[in-house]
Amino acid sequence: MTKLIKIITVPLTSLIFLLSMSSTSMAETTVSAEIGFIFNTLLFLICGFLVFFMACGFAMLESGMVTSKSVSVICAKNIGLISIAGIMFWMFGYNLAYGIPEGGYIGSFIPWSDSSAVDTGYADGSDWYFQMVFCATTVSIVSGTLAERIKLWPFFLFAAILSGIIYPIVMGWQWGGGWLAAAGFSDFAGSTLVHSTGGAAALAGALLLGPRIGRFTKSGAPAPLKPFASSSIPLVTLGVFILWLGWFGFNGGSQLAIGTADDAIAVSTIFLNTFLAGAGGVMAAATVTRLNFGKTDVVQMLNGCIGGLVAITAEPLMPSPLAAILIGGVGGIIVVYGTKLLFTLKIDDVVGAIPAHLFAGIWGTLAVPITNPDTSFGTQLLGVLSINIFVFVVALIVWQIMKSTIGIRLSKEAETKGTDVTETGVVAYAIRD
Amino acid sequence: MTKLIKIITVPLTSLIFLLSMSSTSMAETTVSAEIGFIFNTLLFLICGFLVFFMACGFAMLESGMVTSKSVSVICAKNIGLISIAGIMFWMFGYNLAYGIPEGGYIGSFIPWSDSSAVDTGYADGSDWYFQMVFCATTVSIVSGTLAERIKLWPFFLFAAILSGIIYPIVMGWQWGGGWLAAAGFSDFAGSTLVHSTGGAAALAGALLLGPRIGRFTKSGAPAPLKPFASSSIPLVTLGVFILWLGWFGFNGGSQLAIGTADDAIAVSTIFLNTFLAGAGGVMAAATVTRLNFGKTDVVQMLNGCIGGLVAITAEPLMPSPLAAILIGGVGGIIVVYGTKLLFTLKIDDVVGAIPAHLFAGIWGTLAVPITNPDTSFGTQLLGVLSINIFVFVVALIVWQIMKSTIGIRLSKEAETKGTDVTETGVVAYAIRD
Amino acid sequence: MTKLIKIITVPLTSLIFLLSMSSTSMAETTVSAEIGFIFNTLLFLICGFLVFFMACGFAMLESGMVTSKSVSVICAKNIGLISIAGIMFWMFGYNLAYGIPEGGYIGSFIPWSDSSAVDTGYADGSDWYFQMVFCATTVSIVSGTLAERIKLWPFFLFAAILSGIIYPIVMGWQWGGGWLAAAGFSDFAGSTLVHSTGGAAALAGALLLGPRIGRFTKSGAPAPLKPFASSSIPLVTLGVFILWLGWFGFNGGSQLAIGTADDAIAVSTIFLNTFLAGAGGVMAAATVTRLNFGKTDVVQMLNGCIGGLVAITAEPLMPSPLAAILIGGVGGIIVVYGTKLLFTLKIDDVVGAIPAHLFAGIWGTLAVPITNPDTSFGTQLLGVLSINIFVFVVALIVWQIMKSTIGIRLSKEAETKGTDVTETGVVAYAIRD
Repeated sequence: MTKLIKIITVPLTSLIFLLSMSSTSMAETTVSAEIGFIFNTLLFLICGFLVFFMACGFAMLESGMVTSKSVSVICAKNIGLISIAGIMFWMFGYNLAYGIPEGGYIGSFIPWSDSSAVDTGYADGSDWYFQMVFCATTVSIVSGTLAERIKLWPFFLFAAILSGIIYPIVMGWQWGGGWLAAAGFSDFAGSTLVHSTGGAAALAGALLLGPRIGRFTKSGAPAPLKPFASSSIPLVTLGVFILWLGWFGFNGGSQLAIGTADDAIAVSTIFLNTFLAGAGGVMAAATVTRLNFGKTDVVQMLNGCIGGLVAITAEPLMPSPLAAILIGGVGGIIVVYGTKLLFTLKIDDVVGAIPAHLFAGIWGTLAVPITNPDTSFGTQLLGVLSINIFVFVVALIVWQIMKSTIGIRLSKEAETKGTDVTETGVVAYAIRD
Repeated sequence: MTKLIKIITVPLTSLIFLLSMSSTSMAETTVSAEIGFIFNTLLFLICGFLVFFMACGFAMLESGMVTSKSVSVICAKNIGLISIAGIMFWMFGYNLAYGIPEGGYIGSFIPWSDSSAVDTGYADGSDWYFQMVFCATTVSIVSGTLAERIKLWPFFLFAAILSGIIYPIVMGWQWGGGWLAAAGFSDFAGSTLVHSTGGAAALAGALLLGPRIGRFTKSGAPAPLKPFASSSIPLVTLGVFILWLGWFGFNGGSQLAIGTADDAIAVSTIFLNTFLAGAGGVMAAATVTRLNFGKTDVVQMLNGCIGGLVAITAEPLMPSPLAAILIGGVGGIIVVYGTKLLFTLKIDDVVGAIPAHLFAGIWGTLAVPITNPDTSFGTQLLGVLSINIFVFVVALIVWQIMKSTIGIRLSKEAETKGTDVTETGVVAYAIRD
Repeated sequence: MTKLIKIITVPLTSLIFLLSMSSTSMAETTVSAEIGFIFNTLLFLICGFLVFFMACGFAMLESGMVTSKSVSVICAKNIGLISIAGIMFWMFGYNLAYGIPEGGYIGSFIPWSDSSAVDTGYADGSDWYFQMVFCATTVSIVSGTLAERIKLWPFFLFAAILSGIIYPIVMGWQWGGGWLAAAGFSDFAGSTLVHSTGGAAALAGALLLGPRIGRFTKSGAPAPLKPFASSSIPLVTLGVFILWLGWFGFNGGSQLAIGTADDAIAVSTIFLNTFLAGAGGVMAAATVTRLNFGKTDVVQMLNGCIGGLVAITAEPLMPSPLAAILIGGVGGIIVVYGTKLLFTLKIDDVVGAIPAHLFAGIWGTLAVPITNPDTSFGTQLLGVLSINIFVFVVALIVWQIMKSTIGIRLSKEAETKGTDVTETGVVAYAIRD
């Protein structure tokens, strides 16, 4: 600019005009680049800590759902899996997802390192943090389904593989600019990438692991409820409220920016649609269980909330409030009947993660074209099938290899005695009046 | 710069002045409008998710306070009521409150729709979200008082009426620019509008519903404590901590803006006064129960915290730190003696919501003129009386109509057996050593 | 403005240059000062409420760790201590720490009052709030160690002295610009100032109070586990997750500014290092307990997380991700063996706060020179020794005076009967199937 000004010698009205404009807009741009950078970084950090807290939500939900002899282990699993996921995502995951060539399938196995600059739009570390907690969420989904019968360290090994390799690959296909993104697939915050991925990996594990001893009687009727009664409904409730809270960060942060009024409006819309979809899921599950089974099943209301939230996650921006309620409501109903279906199929999903995350995730992803005209049902189906089949098959292979080598299932004695005693040596509750 | 300008010899001093001013102030104004918009929206979203989380706080507080045979139902109520409140507030509530003509009484029954623009100062969706969680808070207050004996779906119906019609009307009277605002009433974040409204609706319900079977003996002495012992004090504690956390959003967000240094200072003052009032409530209740009853009653300390927070909510900006501690402390004492009063009157408030929200709310609202010279005791009394009487009478009518038609109280058998089994079919705890 | 410019006709190249430059830079500076003020204030408020919530984390961790007959009291202690700490920090603490002359030892005993101005860089109230929750954290550390045998009100008195006098003095030595800061000591967010201070005060109390009756047998072997079994592992897990969440605010907010891109990058780096150190602590404790004791001890994993977090707190900005994992991992191992050491020494630390906060805090502070070249081992050792010895000796004197006068230990009868009944009159759990 200095150079430009130096060569000016003639009366220069129009130049002044241009210069003054550029000066003004420079001021705006200069200020805005850095301010936008701070706003975007703040968005990642705030939404990131909300999503981090979802790990606590899963820990509480699962602690409350399992029987009281498997609670310490589920706590160990949940505090362990986010630790493992974070370390693996730093070592391999981030660059496996983001180091992917355009339209490609896989990135590079090098640890994440900071490459922040004002013109990248946000602090690189804040993006890593935000993406890492998504990775951890995927693994959290698996732990509950397999509770009460899986060995602890084989689960940790699977958590490492899922967070370090499997999830980053599918993440890269879409959010790393890979082939699915190129094909036009749309999954705003991860109904399929995160939730179905977790659910499909859990399903593969549940099939190879088999149900808990005595869970399904020969006649197909539910075994007497009492031996498998959830240990604490208030902890399940706490978990779901924490997850709902975290989901505002999960979906809101996926706007990836809040440095303009438009982005701020978008994040706000996402917050309210996320809320309404959860609300729709709760009330749909409440209504359906009350009408069909006579009682208002609180566990289904809580899981229905998750189902509603998973369903809106693929597209939380475009739906109207009414559409958000309905998309969430269908998610809630899917949870209720999906849970029945798994029971009929004698697949033992201790916390109902497969209906809530896999089934509702499929619904939410396929429902995107209803409100987002830039997407097509065919492409959405392509994404759903490719990711779910890939994850399910790879997870099945990994589980099978582990089953054939180190073993994944606890001994009959250990399972009967309770996994808390055998795995952690710590009884979960010691409450005396 | 002044010096530089002084050495300019061509006659354009005033022009330069105008130019530099207009250029500078344009840059500022242009940048500030959008940046302010983002800041204000962020405030609503951050404070909004904190207030959202208060629903979890109420769920935990109430879960811990009720006996262990009514915990699943209280969880169902709490996850259900925020869902219902959100949907109703979208369908009717928001425009019933904000669509009100100046000085009027009631707005319009049309669903909320987004009308964001940079010059409105914040994203419309973020305001809806923030106002909606206030509406949900009002309903949360009711659920605990009526626990252990009310039918689930009639409670849901009342929640819909309270969140969709009753609360929005009183909200509109003040925050919608209605007749109370025109009269000069002041209620910064809702000691009366939210907390007394919830408490008055709960009182009406408690009177029509009657106490739990066996709660009050004929002699007037407390029934043996054990059958009504709170199921879990740590859950009550968790609930109160979450509520205290959420209250920073509740009061801080009610500044409605953080786009200037003055607003940022105001929000900070509100945070610290909110903290100190809660602290005052805790220690006042601790001291009073220790001195008068011999033991430091932890439940009264926890409810005293709520009382202190409710009391400061009407005016969290103007008080000095000392005033905040005292206002909160009186709130805590009111909770202790209010609880005794209700017991004497044989009104069964299972969680102590009426003393904490209604009584402390009245105190906080009437105390505003002590620190805010722009208010008067008379006008504050007008607001307190008009809102509490309106809400109490309307709620009484609604409860009575429901009582006479669908019924609001569980059968004697169901209450004795435990509401968890009869209403949700899910036992809350299954803990085995 | 266009019109104004169009009437300029004289050749004023250099003037335009100067003017456009000054106008641009003025615009930037003017805007930035206020925007920076808002950003910094927001950082303090957001990080502050996260640290506030750590009080809930401590309450849950401790509630879960103690036996079920001391849970109500631990809840009363935790809700009470933050209330007391806040009031004391307003009355004395803040100016005792910040009113210190440069290089000095102690400030002034006057209550905090607001001195906000745009050029101070942040709202004074937001800084008070942020510093106050640090003060409360210090006191929180003490409550768990001394559980199940200390009298409630003497504990409250100690809490007042620690938060009003002891902590502010050491805080002032470093963060108030006192003699330790002048000596070159470095403790970014308080491994020593907060965590070791709390741990040293707890150790002094534990020595004078003695162990719980029956905790250590004459032979030195652990007493039968059952009578001292933790009441609820899921509550411990909840507490640790909340603490981990809060730690992002604890360390991230200690950057003290987020008004520039550089600060935003720094806060992001701190978030991720804080996460990774906690993860390292979890997995190190898991591995060590599994290999050495045969079981993967969930309590040690959870306390190992705390140890890792405490260790990184002295320097969360400079370490690489790998260094953060290792620093945290060593913190986790220190917790495991520190717990064993205390047991051997027959010091009864009910929740393991001394290893997690004092021992890991010493490690973290001494490890700073590994990654921060501006520090030296000698100066770090000076800080560690001076603060820990000062706090330990003063606390010992205070505890001893209290022991000799009002008494600090409950009667044998009360301890055997359970502190909940004797101190609060409220049984913590009343759970019936």
